[in-house]
Amino acid sequence: MGHDQKYVDKKNYEVVGTRFNRPDGIDKVTGKARYGADASAPGQLVGRVLRSPHAHASILKINVGKAEKLPGVKAIITSADLPDLTGQDQGLADILENCMARGRALYDGHAVAAVAAVDEQTAAKALKLIDVKYKKLPHVTDVDAAMCESAPVIHDRIITRGVEPKPTKPSNIAARTQMGHGDVEAGFAEADVVIEKSYKTEQTHQGYIEPHACLASVNPDGTAELWVTTQGHFVFRNVCASLLGLDIAKLKVTSSEIGGGFGGKTHVWVEPVALALSRKANRPVKLVMGRDEVFRATGPTSSTSIDVKMGAKKDGTITAAVAEMRYQGGAFPGNWAMLGCMTAFACYDIKNNQSIGWDVVVNRPKVAAYRAPSAPMAAFAVESTIDELAKEVGIAPIDMRLKNVAREGTLAPYGPTYGPIGIEHTLKAVKDHPHMRAKLKKNQGRGVACGFWFNIGGQTCTDLNIGVDGTVNLTLGTVDVGGSRSSMAMIAAEELGIPYEQVRANIADTTSLGHNDMTEGSRGTFSSGMATVFAARDAIGVLKQRAAKMWGITEEHVIWENGQAIATGDSHGNLPPLSLKEIAAKSGRTGGPIAGHNEVVADGAGMGFASHICDVEVDPETGRSTIIRYTVVQDAGKAINPDYVEGQFQGGATQGIGWALNEEYIYGDDGRLQNPGFLDYRIPVCSDLPFIDTQILEVPNPLHPYGIRGVGETSIVPPLAAVGNAIANATGVRMSHAPMSPPRVLAAIDALEYAS
Amino acid sequence: MGHDQKYVDKKNYEVVGTRFNRPDGIDKVTGKARYGADASAPGQLVGRVLRSPHAHASILKINVGKAEKLPGVKAIITSADLPDLTGQDQGLADILENCMARGRALYDGHAVAAVAAVDEQTAAKALKLIDVKYKKLPHVTDVDAAMCESAPVIHDRIITRGVEPKPTKPSNIAARTQMGHGDVEAGFAEADVVIEKSYKTEQTHQGYIEPHACLASVNPDGTAELWVTTQGHFVFRNVCASLLGLDIAKLKVTSSEIGGGFGGKTHVWVEPVALALSRKANRPVKLVMGRDEVFRATGPTSSTSIDVKMGAKKDGTITAAVAEMRYQGGAFPGNWAMLGCMTAFACYDIKNNQSIGWDVVVNRPKVAAYRAPSAPMAAFAVESTIDELAKEVGIAPIDMRLKNVAREGTLAPYGPTYGPIGIEHTLKAVKDHPHMRAKLKKNQGRGVACGFWFNIGGQTCTDLNIGVDGTVNLTLGTVDVGGSRSSMAMIAAEELGIPYEQVRANIADTTSLGHNDMTEGSRGTFSSGMATVFAARDAIGVLKQRAAKMWGITEEHVIWENGQAIATGDSHGNLPPLSLKEIAAKSGRTGGPIAGHNEVVADGAGMGFASHICDVEVDPETGRSTIIRYTVVQDAGKAINPDYVEGQFQGGATQGIGWALNEEYIYGDDGRLQNPGFLDYRIPVCSDLPFIDTQILEVPNPLHPYGIRGVGETSIVPPLAAVGNAIANATGVRMSHAPMSPPRVLAAIDALEYAS
Repeated sequence: MGHDQKYVDKKNYEVVGTRFNRPDGIDKVTGKARYGADASAPGQLVGRVLRSPHAHASILKINVGKAEKLPGVKAIITSADLPDLTGQDQGLADILENCMARGRALYDGHAVAAVAAVDEQTAAKALKLIDVKYKKLPHVTDVDAAMCESAPVIHDRIITRGVEPKPTKPSNIAARTQMGHGDVEAGFAEADVVIEKSYKTEQTHQGYIEPHACLASVNPDGTAELWVTTQGHFVFRNVCASLLGLDIAKLKVTSSEIGGGFGGKTHVWVEPVALALSRKANRPVKLVMGRDEVFRATGPTSSTSIDVKMGAKKDGTITAAVAEMRYQGGAFPGNWAMLGCMTAFACYDIKNNQSIGWDVVVNRPKVAAYRAPSAPMAAFAVESTIDELAKEVGIAPIDMRLKNVAREGTLAPYGPTYGPIGIEHTLKAVKDHPHMRAKLKKNQGRGVACGFWFNIGGQTCTDLNIGVDGTVNLTLGTVDVGGSRSSMAMIAAEELGIPYEQVRANIADTTSLGHNDMTEGSRGTFSSGMATVFAARDAIGVLKQRAAKMWGITEEHVIWENGQAIATGDSHGNLPPLSLKEIAAKSGRTGGPIAGHNEVVADGAGMGFASHICDVEVDPETGRSTIIRYTVVQDAGKAINPDYVEGQFQGGATQGIGWALNEEYIYGDDGRLQNPGFLDYRIPVCSDLPFIDTQILEVPNPLHPYGIRGVGETSIVPPLAAVGNAIANATGVRMSHAPMSPPRVLAAIDALEYAS
Repeated sequence: MGHDQKYVDKKNYEVVGTRFNRPDGIDKVTGKARYGADASAPGQLVGRVLRSPHAHASILKINVGKAEKLPGVKAIITSADLPDLTGQDQGLADILENCMARGRALYDGHAVAAVAAVDEQTAAKALKLIDVKYKKLPHVTDVDAAMCESAPVIHDRIITRGVEPKPTKPSNIAARTQMGHGDVEAGFAEADVVIEKSYKTEQTHQGYIEPHACLASVNPDGTAELWVTTQGHFVFRNVCASLLGLDIAKLKVTSSEIGGGFGGKTHVWVEPVALALSRKANRPVKLVMGRDEVFRATGPTSSTSIDVKMGAKKDGTITAAVAEMRYQGGAFPGNWAMLGCMTAFACYDIKNNQSIGWDVVVNRPKVAAYRAPSAPMAAFAVESTIDELAKEVGIAPIDMRLKNVAREGTLAPYGPTYGPIGIEHTLKAVKDHPHMRAKLKKNQGRGVACGFWFNIGGQTCTDLNIGVDGTVNLTLGTVDVGGSRSSMAMIAAEELGIPYEQVRANIADTTSLGHNDMTEGSRGTFSSGMATVFAARDAIGVLKQRAAKMWGITEEHVIWENGQAIATGDSHGNLPPLSLKEIAAKSGRTGGPIAGHNEVVADGAGMGFASHICDVEVDPETGRSTIIRYTVVQDAGKAINPDYVEGQFQGGATQGIGWALNEEYIYGDDGRLQNPGFLDYRIPVCSDLPFIDTQILEVPNPLHPYGIRGVGETSIVPPLAAVGNAIANATGVRMSHAPMSPPRVLAAIDALEYAS
């Protein structure tokens, strides 16, 4: 059922905007909630994956003979057991080759074989009995090094896209992207001050607490089931069906509770392997990754190398801006640089701007989305440079940003002209915020940075069914990664005019609802919120029909207000209203169960903008930076459940701070990951951080009935730069390499001292 | 979405009526299928029920102190832990009291307490430590005895309904029902022959192989989950929510695969107990009945005592018929006699007829539905009497029946005037059947009997979602007890014009679909079939819209034929058709996922009629009867999946034969059940029976788009009488007491010999 209606049409809210306990809270704190590893099936086997110890190697031979003979081993697969999609859909072929190496191991941790056995011990023993003959090949893990002429070329088939003339030789450069408008040369000519700087950011992992886990079961007739921790079980269904040659309808995928995803659970890793093992063994197979496997073989974010050049007039007007950004995508090409180009200058109205992006392959795990993927690195470079520019022209960083801020009508660097957006509002709120007037002590500094994420919409389905007691089941298909069950229940309650407690929201499996795109791009609340509004309105249509039937009047004389049907018209004015509960109680006699449905492509995602303030104290002895105050100001369009919106703001800021200060993939010269665990890859814990203050602004998205904008991702964009700007303010040192870990900061302080 | 269209509108079938492998077959034969006992949850407890050893006793005191102190015991409940619904909804109060005795144990096996403990052993030990002080009360288990003045009165509150003047004293007679038309006295006056006979049938159990089992989990916030083997998880949801004070939407019920139900899984028994234990323990509780509990404490069918009087003219015309039928409902009143009254004479056009029914309570477990509940006993009495009448007037039993058969336009004894019905067709088919000409040897005899079941419709919801590869998920809410997933997939494929293999049918949990009534009354294929047709047509509407969009023409110029959209009109005639797969592949770009939905009260269930032929050989030495040939002829309206229809015919006949020959509840003088197990309660096994032949007739039900009539129940109605008539034909002995077990038959033969 399509709905053409696309504008904010809701004025006053009763339920939306208030605060409730989490509906999933009890299950989660009592251990009842079932995550990816918490399902089991009779006769299930344990799946385990054998992974390459080499960064790059030819696989000469895989001998599984000994392993197969081990009692308790029920199936062993290698790429020979999976379809060879080479030459067909290359995107799918890459996904499958990433799940299981075909001929070559392309990174440390790349899967080369998998086993299904009766228990963990047998599976582990079997892995050891699989004899893989490798021939090591030269490798490259650094993005800049990978672009050199002399670098080992990882894929013969990669000819750089987007370059004229088309290159004749393969390289590690998958694509070049360019965006922007105006004449940057002319812009720089106008500038009084030009700053040119290079930055580097290291690869980080989403750090979700729950490793990938699934339970797969495939029958000989092609019907199959998959229980899995994922951000999108419908997409997993479609991808796994395509990879393994199953019918979409015959593969039932159920999403478990999810212990964090942040983009990392938008891609399949072990799921096709588990399904293939189950198909071969004809038994259910449970496959749970260890933490080291998560680090080595799932999808971290890109490491980058970025050059920024910006010019400004003395009055602070930025006249030109250029960014050239190199994103590594791991061992397979991605489109990560494009996202950097889209976001780099999006907060500003810069007459002449140009973003150039390079997608580069290296011998690292295939990069995955990580919360506003590619944007934090671009923002780190651009927002650091803006602070430098502000210093040069002698304007406060906040005023420099306000001077150049994008507004409704601004042409965005990536094409569209902005409608109503909130970046100026966030900057003004920052300027007014008490945080900006908090006293700073010795070795302390303050930084401000902005961030942008465009957000997406996409395909969404929602069903709404009303019980005879008037309580409502809302059936959703977007995985609840951040509290959307509560938010959707609030929206349904709001539309129907009933209390929040009367609605239970549920995530349906793939057999019970139409296709839903992944919960990514901050689309969950936006798109399922839209589908929920429309499904509720569909149900209200039915409720009005039933009320009309109960009254014996025509439907045109019924309106719906405050959770009840009201008869209108002179002759009907005396009929007492009928509540939803009253109509529901009679539904069996007035036409059957009352439902509402909606299938929609949710267009019109509202852009998300934020400005952050960070206070840092830098220990000049150790180079260690401590966050002492942090404030997130972001435009939510409309905050459905403010608790959760604040949680998103805080969570994104925390992840950005971890990235800014500590988190990084450390590869040895041998191309092997040296820190695949939470002891050596250090994410922030509670004691590392102050309470992160938040301020929600609401500039309604005009293309959503409730004005909703996605809020999940933007909050990770500013922190790298906000921290960097604060460190610069505290120490006078401009950090150009993230994470700004104690050794790097100390080295930079030392270098400054030696220089002075 | 209501559909007013209610008539057979389908003429030619491509998929419907063909034969496919069971979609659930692989799971069931490999042990992957998950039944009621096959679910588990972290931290789950084992639930066990303590049951009364007395047929009738006051519960003076229940001391749970010792049991509670046993380590590992997490919760003990008695009726004190359940709401007291007395004086509110008496039906609900009875259901709850049957689940857990309140003050008195009303039958051997009545639950008096329940325990949840960490394991089976601890739970068993705890049951022994619960000290119940009983005071035995006089009991009555026989239906005729219970009606006597002198019988102990089980419920003070029961004042017979339907009797004028209203009785002043309580009794065990819950209600009197009367139906029929004409003037029976005048009818008997017209008759040349009058036969008057009394019959008795014993109590039988549905004998489903899977005992009742469930896994319940209740949270302190009132959200709850129940995994259960049931014929209707939506009804279980509503009933359990009402009994325990939960919101309907907050109780998620998932139906497991079901190992037989036949009516016995339409009522709650241990489910509210498991939920209450879970609520008290704050842990999931798994409760699985033992076979002895199934026999002692779930719902068998009524035992009956029936008087029939019928009169006929010499030409065979039945001029008058009266039946007085006494049905015991166990320890709580039921409406079983009404069903006997509705069905007793329904196969015939008898000018003057009268059925009187009595519902009687006794100290036995609360009676449940058992496949065409109450009808087989009435048919046993009436169809036996018709054979006696035929003998008296000298007409062959088959011709006697054809002479009086009901037809379109006949006024049914229970009120309606028949539309097109198939009883005459089945009798003619029987007459023509080769079985009727098979030679009978010594000690062999042949019997014919007819049966009727009215069938029901009711509330039904179906969703249909089309994947991008054109495969289809069909979401159903009527539990698949006899293959309806396959039949519904066939109907969806038929409507959409695609192969059967392209559709997967699924039974949704209660949070994913609107309310569905119980799978009972042979309504599954009728009602979900109707909802599936309408949901598919809803989807076809969307498919046509999308095709129009793809073509850039208006929707009025698109028709749907043979699984493809066809552009019509002069200007569009050249557009090549678009298949469902082609439209589905583009759905993301033409408006989103394609779905169809339907919520309906399926009115117009078509009546089911059957005629059976039974050949029996009676061993005059032992009285043992062996079925040597058996044929079922039944009107299916339209057989969607003929394999399953035949399976229903055979299954019903088999259960009827078991009832006819062996199955019965045997109570001792102490009121305790003496044969609560399959060793002493003998259901037929394969070696007991010949292949049961079947013949499907198709007299379309005009009120269903495909002409479907329910087929699940009618087949159990004729066997008791068919067997009895065959025994009479073989031995000359009219058996008036079922089961016609060897001792009873031998006694009757002996009596005949002594008499002669």
